Amino acid sequence: MSQEQLSPVSDPSSAAAVLEREPGAIGRWAIGRIRRNLGEVPVRVRLADGLELALAKGTPIATVIVRDRRTLLRVLRNPGLNFGEAYMSGDVDVEGDLLALLLAVHGTRRTEDSNGRRLFARRNTLSAARDNVHHHYDLGNDFYRLWLDEQLVYTCAYFPTPDASLDAAQVAKMDLVARKLRLQPGERVVEAGCGWGALALHMAREYGASVRAFNISREQIRHARQRAAEEGLQGRVEFVEDDYRNITGTYDVFVSVGMLEHVGLPDYRTFGDVIHRSLPRGRGRGLLHFIGRNRPAAMNAWIAKRIFPGAYPPTLAEVGEGVLEAHDLSVLDVENLRLHYAKTLEHWRMRFERAADTVRQMFDDTFVRGWRLYLSGSQAAFLAGSLQLFQVVFARGESNDIPWTRGGLYRET
Amino acid sequence: MSQEQLSPVSDPSSAAAVLEREPGAIGRWAIGRIRRNLGEVPVRVRLADGLELALAKGTPIATVIVRDRRTLLRVLRNPGLNFGEAYMSGDVDVEGDLLALLLAVHGTRRTEDSNGRRLFARRNTLSAARDNVHHHYDLGNDFYRLWLDEQLVYTCAYFPTPDASLDAAQVAKMDLVARKLRLQPGERVVEAGCGWGALALHMAREYGASVRAFNISREQIRHARQRAAEEGLQGRVEFVEDDYRNITGTYDVFVSVGMLEHVGLPDYRTFGDVIHRSLPRGRGRGLLHFIGRNRPAAMNAWIAKRIFPGAYPPTLAEVGEGVLEAHDLSVLDVENLRLHYAKTLEHWRMRFERAADTVRQMFDDTFVRGWRLYLSGSQAAFLAGSLQLFQVVFARGESNDIPWTRGGLYRET
Repeated sequence: MSQEQLSPVSDPSSAAAVLEREPGAIGRWAIGRIRRNLGEVPVRVRLADGLELALAKGTPIATVIVRDRRTLLRVLRNPGLNFGEAYMSGDVDVEGDLLALLLAVHGTRRTEDSNGRRLFARRNTLSAARDNVHHHYDLGNDFYRLWLDEQLVYTCAYFPTPDASLDAAQVAKMDLVARKLRLQPGERVVEAGCGWGALALHMAREYGASVRAFNISREQIRHARQRAAEEGLQGRVEFVEDDYRNITGTYDVFVSVGMLEHVGLPDYRTFGDVIHRSLPRGRGRGLLHFIGRNRPAAMNAWIAKRIFPGAYPPTLAEVGEGVLEAHDLSVLDVENLRLHYAKTLEHWRMRFERAADTVRQMFDDTFVRGWRLYLSGSQAAFLAGSLQLFQVVFARGESNDIPWTRGGLYRET
Repeated sequence: MSQEQLSPVSDPSSAAAVLEREPGAIGRWAIGRIRRNLGEVPVRVRLADGLELALAKGTPIATVIVRDRRTLLRVLRNPGLNFGEAYMSGDVDVEGDLLALLLAVHGTRRTEDSNGRRLFARRNTLSAARDNVHHHYDLGNDFYRLWLDEQLVYTCAYFPTPDASLDAAQVAKMDLVARKLRLQPGERVVEAGCGWGALALHMAREYGASVRAFNISREQIRHARQRAAEEGLQGRVEFVEDDYRNITGTYDVFVSVGMLEHVGLPDYRTFGDVIHRSLPRGRGRGLLHFIGRNRPAAMNAWIAKRIFPGAYPPTLAEVGEGVLEAHDLSVLDVENLRLHYAKTLEHWRMRFERAADTVRQMFDDTFVRGWRLYLSGSQAAFLAGSLQLFQVVFARGESNDIPWTRGGLYRET
């Protein structure tokens, strides 16, 4: 039975019929399916009944163990969603290097759903946005404290050198952002999506800025306010529990780190309007830091279901057209830091694994397995170039308050 | 007669009728028209018969002298085209600071035609491209020698400090490009659109690269080949008189400085295909340096007619969607150097004015006036933010041969 003959088999029930009639056929059939989905990756697949298949020649980087034929069919039917579901439940396991496996899969460049624009045209209403954020960011600060840096910065760090510590790299990232913004003492900053408040506090403490920071995660806002009080920065940093769409006031600087991914394409124009009305006429500048893509594609279905509902990583063009163009905002600088995000995720993953027993006690094994897959898959995606991390500096189109060169970013102060 | 009453007057012949009946009405009518086109700019308009109008209150920055009412009507009918036409012929003159006048006009942000996409959807065929280029770049090397730098670099320079000389700034630009590309000795480079060859020669001489450079301007190629011979670089730089669409071979690096503006939107996909097939599978990198926009708009009609036929300055989104996305090329770095282009044009304009008598002898006064307007208008456009200068560094999406930080660009070597 050739791969071509198998191609039309799209209904797994008919495949199941094939399996009943001729159990040995499953190997060739499954290989055909998987190759069509992924291309050739040097991975072995082992079924619980002992059947073992090699997807491609060469030393296998990992063995995927599938509990039963039902699971195999489920994964083959919708691998983007069901591999993650089955891995999380333990119906699928991986022997060997999970990261290497995911990296090989990303390397085949078949993991992206290029119908992203349509799939993610659903709006994140105010209440949907709150649900989405609650789903992920309100898992409990104790959980995040187990594996994030000491300031709980849950976005891509900036490693001055690859061997910098995670704590140092998160501080370096905040400094990089502040330097790209050329923050001056007394300047007013609005931050859309502030996590646990580290950047807002950093800009106030280290740069003398006056910051209003918005976030719809109650847990995060509570923590951020507590930190502001502890540091005596309440007078200079205000944490507002509200949606970015409800930002009011005008500011010298607009900054948003790791929130645009949660906005969703249908609200880009609104996001641009918020930036526009937050900056004074004729001047003002800002920075957007977000997970992006080289070309439009939806977030992986399993990530969208289990980890980041409503999220969409945009291309630079989508951000330009959707957010910046309407109000003549001018792109001054773009930097792609995807390898820094891979490194950040490597740190998070290692720390998460060291804390896995504690996490299992807080939640359960399914949770641990799901997060293991999410962190490994994200690291693989940034390493393989399926995901990008863009920092975009922009300014009012008519403003000439522009640094002459970027050299100042890299000189010691 | 209020401005509102005049608004429907779109046929200048009826306006002419108004002028015949009541000569004094022209002032209020013309002011209404101009204000609708430009907004309020502190400029005076003087007609040869002595009538003088102030467009707005405040000290006028310049006086526009209009030879006769026919010229006034002509300019009002299609200011984007006919102001330039009338200035060039001398039917319109400017007393005072031409640059300040153009800057004020750009500052009103009403000079852009946002129908750019449609207006410039015409393809630049191979022969049209050759005609377009011949029109501008084959005016004679002697002409360009009068006012460009010593190496005849006719693209935005990079001034390490604002007071750097033009010659030094053009060398600094070539170094910036080579450093952004991380050129290594022996690497193969293809250059699409090479002007008089300065960058190709620089990359070969200073970085040991092996360069193939394409250009359809016969005058420029002839000069470039002569320079290569004089410098003994024929073995490492090949100048090919051909269209970028006919580039063959594979290279480590693709570079194009100041050519994308001449490609035109309909050929962006083709341009992306050329980049794709010029780079090896899985690796390779490149740089695009081009005049762009914050939002889509056509080139000014007079510039398109007299200076750069077929040209279109794109947005970053248009370049991303049109050129880079289809082949998963990843944007690593974008820098906006528009103030450097304003400074470059200031140098060119000053040098052009010092050589104006010689240029008049080579061509005629109409030519001098046309180029004065083009150089002043371009400087104003970059100063006002109507035009941008983008340098985009990209790499194959799957390549991890990426600099860890951009610090190396700014460290002394």
